[in-house]
Amino acid sequence: MSNINDEHKIQLIVTGGTIDSFYDTDQCTTVCHDETAIPDFLAKFANITADEYELFEACMKDSREISNEDIQEVSNAIINSKSSRHIVTHGTFTLFESARTLMAMLPDNHGQVIVFTGAMWPLVGFSPNDAGFNLGSAFVAARLATPGVYIAFNGKLYLPTDQEGLH
Amino acid sequence: MSNINDEHKIQLIVTGGTIDSFYDTDQCTTVCHDETAIPDFLAKFANITADEYELFEACMKDSREISNEDIQEVSNAIINSKSSRHIVTHGTFTLFESARTLMAMLPDNHGQVIVFTGAMWPLVGFSPNDAGFNLGSAFVAARLATPGVYIAFNGKLYLPTDQEGLH
Amino acid sequence: MSNINDEHKIQLIVTGGTIDSFYDTDQCTTVCHDETAIPDFLAKFANITADEYELFEACMKDSREISNEDIQEVSNAIINSKSSRHIVTHGTFTLFESARTLMAMLPDNHGQVIVFTGAMWPLVGFSPNDAGFNLGSAFVAARLATPGVYIAFNGKLYLPTDQEGLH
Amino acid sequence: MSNINDEHKIQLIVTGGTIDSFYDTDQCTTVCHDETAIPDFLAKFANITADEYELFEACMKDSREISNEDIQEVSNAIINSKSSRHIVTHGTFTLFESARTLMAMLPDNHGQVIVFTGAMWPLVGFSPNDAGFNLGSAFVAARLATPGVYIAFNGKLYLPTDQEGLH
Repeated sequence: MSNINDEHKIQLIVTGGTIDSFYDTDQCTTVCHDETAIPDFLAKFANITADEYELFEACMKDSREISNEDIQEVSNAIINSKSSRHIVTHGTFTLFESARTLMAMLPDNHGQVIVFTGAMWPLVGFSPNDAGFNLGSAFVAARLATPGVYIAFNGKLYLPTDQEGLH
Repeated sequence: MSNINDEHKIQLIVTGGTIDSFYDTDQCTTVCHDETAIPDFLAKFANITADEYELFEACMKDSREISNEDIQEVSNAIINSKSSRHIVTHGTFTLFESARTLMAMLPDNHGQVIVFTGAMWPLVGFSPNDAGFNLGSAFVAARLATPGVYIAFNGKLYLPTDQEGLH
Repeated sequence: MSNINDEHKIQLIVTGGTIDSFYDTDQCTTVCHDETAIPDFLAKFANITADEYELFEACMKDSREISNEDIQEVSNAIINSKSSRHIVTHGTFTLFESARTLMAMLPDNHGQVIVFTGAMWPLVGFSPNDAGFNLGSAFVAARLATPGVYIAFNGKLYLPTDQEGLH
Repeated sequence: MSNINDEHKIQLIVTGGTIDSFYDTDQCTTVCHDETAIPDFLAKFANITADEYELFEACMKDSREISNEDIQEVSNAIINSKSSRHIVTHGTFTLFESARTLMAMLPDNHGQVIVFTGAMWPLVGFSPNDAGFNLGSAFVAARLATPGVYIAFNGKLYLPTDQEGLH
C-alpha cells in the first residue's frame, strides 16, 4: 500500500454529543451512551480495528454540559499522545466554542492536526443519519490537513472562528 | 466563513454500485436505484443542496458491469466540468480497476482531484452502513487532496495501484 | 384465499404520537409528521395499499396535547365508517386514557372492534423500532378480536382499564 | 391486568429465514445469523423478556434448505411444549409449504395455535423493514386465534392452503 495514509495512528478522543447518543424513550430525546459506540461501528462497518487508533474517552456529555475542565482533558490527551493527528467527537451545540477553547489552551506551534466533528443524528439507531458521514470526513481530514484545529461537518472543513454554532 | 472550503463546486459523478442501491426482495440482493439516491441524502442529512455541486449520472450499474465506455463517459464528464474536484461513486468490485482505467484515459498533468468511493452497504435502507462514512470522507478528500486519482474507503485514502479489489 | 381476513376494510385512524413522528434536530426530540407516514410504510413494506383500508387523519399531535374534541372526532369517524374494525394510532403518554375516553363516548353495544396502538420509537428513521411491531399486531388484533376497545402494545392486547399509562 | 393475554407462555420456534438474517457483504445477499437475533429485539424494543416465552431454535436456514426433518423437529417441539400457543419464524420461499407439511405431521385435534411468520427484509440492519410488523402480528395472532395452523403476513392471517408461496 502507498504511504498516503500517514503511518502514525490517529488518536480518537470522544466527549459524547448527539453523534454518540441513543434515543431515550423516557426523556424523548437523545442521551449519550455510557460508553462510546464509535469503536464498535468503526470495527464492524469501516474495518478500522482498535489497534489502528488510540482511543481516549474524555467524557460522555451533551455539549451544553462540557466544561473547560473537559476541554483541558482533551488538550492534555493531545499533548500526551504519540499521535500528531486527532479526531475529537463532540456535541453540536458548542462544537465551535470548544474548538476555540482548545485552540487557546494549546501551545503555539503545537504541530498537531486536530479535527472536531459531531452530528445532528446519532451514529446508531437512526437511519439515515449524518453521523457516519461526518465521522468519515473527519478521518480523511485528520490524515490530509496541515497542522491546525478544524471542524469537519457536512462535508466541509471549518475553522473554529468560522461560526458561532450549529443550532 | 474561511476559504478552507474551495470555492469551486465539487462535481459528483455517480455510476451506481452498492452505495446507491436498495435491497431487492425478489432477487435477495442489492440492486442499483433507477436514479441516484445520493442527492436526496446530501440535502436532507448533510445540508448539501443541489446548487452546491455539479451532478453527473454516468450510469447506474453494478461495478461488475461497468465498461470502458462508462469510464470514458466519466473521463469526459471530468474534462468538460468547470470543477477541478470530483467525486465518483462506484461499486466496490472493480473500484480500483476503474480508477486505474480512468487514470490511463486522462491526459498527463490533468490537474484534477478525483476521488472514487463506494460502500459495502447501501446509503439508504441499511442501518448502520458504511456508505455515509465513505461518502463523507470523499467530500473532504476532494477538498483537501492534491491533484491525482484516489480511492476514499474505510477512512483512508488509497491510490489506484494500491489494491486489486475490495472483495 | 380463505375468509379468515374479514372482508370488510379496516379503518385506520391516525392521531399522531411518536409512532408517526420524526426526530427534529432543532428540538432534539420527536415531532409528529405534518402528514401521516403510515400509509407509505404499509404500501412499501407490508403490501397494504390505500384501497385496502379507510384512512382518517383525526389530528397529528403529541398525545399530551390530545383533547376530548380530538377523541370526539375519532368517535365520530368510527360511527360514520362503513367498517366495523378500526385501528387508532396514538401517542403513548395518554394512550390508555384516550381509549377510556373513547369507550365512554361510544354507545353501548357499538359492535365495533377498536384497537389503539402506538410506539416508543417512530416508524421511520429509527432502527430498530417498536412501531412496526405494534402496528402489525394492531392489524391482526383488529381482524381477530371480538367487539370492544383494546390497546395493542408489546405483542399483547390490553383493555383500556388495564393501565394508567406507558411512561 | 386483564386476562386477555393468555396466561400460558408463547413458544417461539425459530428456523431462520430472511427475518432472522443479516446482509452478507461478501455474498451480497442476506444470510441467517448463527444465532437468532429475535430475542434481543424482543427484549430491547418490545419489552418481552426471555422468561415470558419458551424459545426453541430448530435450525437457522434459508427456507429453500428446510427439510422434512427440520419440520419434524418443529412438530416435536410443539408436541413437547407446555405451551399451546406457538410462533414459528421461517423463510418466505417455502413458508406456506412448511405450514402444510407441519399440519400433516400434527395429530388431528392437536388443539394448538400455531402461527408461522417471516419477512422480506431482516429484523435488524434494514430500515424500514417488514420483519417487526410481521413478528408483532404473529404475537397477537398466537394470543387470539383459535387452534389451527396459520401464516401471519402483511397484517393478515392466512391458512396454509391459501397460497403456494410468497415469491
